[in-house]
Amino acid sequence: MATTTGRVYRIATVTCSVRAPRLNPFISQYVRDTIAPSRTGIALDIIDLQDQALPLCDEPEIPSHLPPDDPTPHYRNEHTRRWSETVRGYDAFIFVTPQYNWSIPASLKNALDYLFYEWKGKPTAVVTYGGKGGGKAADHLRQILTGLQMRVAKSTAQLTVTSKTLEYCLKLDEINGADTERWRKDGMEAELQNAFKELVDMLQGGQ
Amino acid sequence: MATTTGRVYRIATVTCSVRAPRLNPFISQYVRDTIAPSRTGIALDIIDLQDQALPLCDEPEIPSHLPPDDPTPHYRNEHTRRWSETVRGYDAFIFVTPQYNWSIPASLKNALDYLFYEWKGKPTAVVTYGGKGGGKAADHLRQILTGLQMRVAKSTAQLTVTSKTLEYCLKLDEINGADTERWRKDGMEAELQNAFKELVDMLQGGQ
Repeated sequence: MATTTGRVYRIATVTCSVRAPRLNPFISQYVRDTIAPSRTGIALDIIDLQDQALPLCDEPEIPSHLPPDDPTPHYRNEHTRRWSETVRGYDAFIFVTPQYNWSIPASLKNALDYLFYEWKGKPTAVVTYGGKGGGKAADHLRQILTGLQMRVAKSTAQLTVTSKTLEYCLKLDEINGADTERWRKDGMEAELQNAFKELVDMLQGGQ
Repeated sequence: MATTTGRVYRIATVTCSVRAPRLNPFISQYVRDTIAPSRTGIALDIIDLQDQALPLCDEPEIPSHLPPDDPTPHYRNEHTRRWSETVRGYDAFIFVTPQYNWSIPASLKNALDYLFYEWKGKPTAVVTYGGKGGGKAADHLRQILTGLQMRVAKSTAQLTVTSKTLEYCLKLDEINGADTERWRKDGMEAELQNAFKELVDMLQGGQ
């Protein structure tokens, strides 16, 4: 999937859980590896929310009340300015998140609520994982991203994990072939590729 | 509404936003004042999540894997043990929350995700506020509380606020009569009383 404009687009895969031990970095890597072969003209990075070290949102201003063109310098805290700068540097996002208690983890909602214009209008896709794939978290997240006025891809991969998945990842330092084979059979590999194609189409159509 | 069992039930109204400036403590007080006249045999407290000072969840264990009867000593962190102890001391909860980006704030999801057996089986009601009343946050929260196996009241008050509501609260140190009159006319005062009655009925029926 080559871009037709000659511009290199930057897409971030976002690791959304910040707990330890956690499966999320392994799943994010799988998502990136699955879409990477078709990435001509696209820079694909992984952002780990753990590295952002954001506390529960402590900004006094509502982000949508800041100047749309350049909100970054208007935040009070250095961690917010850094997060704003990071998000402004990307053209699209793939959120990879576990489901906790039928919704998304607080770490993800917190990172989203810190900003507004940095997200607005950008293409985004949702990937969840859980014992049943995390579909309830996907529904909530898609609604939240729509509230942030992002353009949400229709394709959404929901990856089932088993009681052994984390144990294997920590032992092998990669995802077990039995897991990736199940996801491929479930059609999730194709769904990820479709989601990526939707993002690229939105980026090129949006020029 | 007197209890028939002679036991005093403890119900907590939970202030869920931790940002400053914030409207939430004023709304929580309004909720408590509205249900207080019918509280014979019920102790009504307010829990403010700001006072709990919970960081983003940093416990290594999944709360539902801890011993159901006494999870409190099994948490690694003092802030978690304190929060567990607090929640265990109540029989039912009224969550009073703003809507951020079409869902609940991270502070509330975080406080919920820290625990499991401390919530399980207890009656709960949902009160939201926002420019349009916060109905989208209410839908998400009701689903999350169902995921936590709580018993969720059908009545759910959704309080509309205006661009002046916060300014007046900070100036008067209480909610303006224009706001409470609007909520009364919208049927929200009655809805709060109905929600409280549902909680008490569940508590008594559950004996």
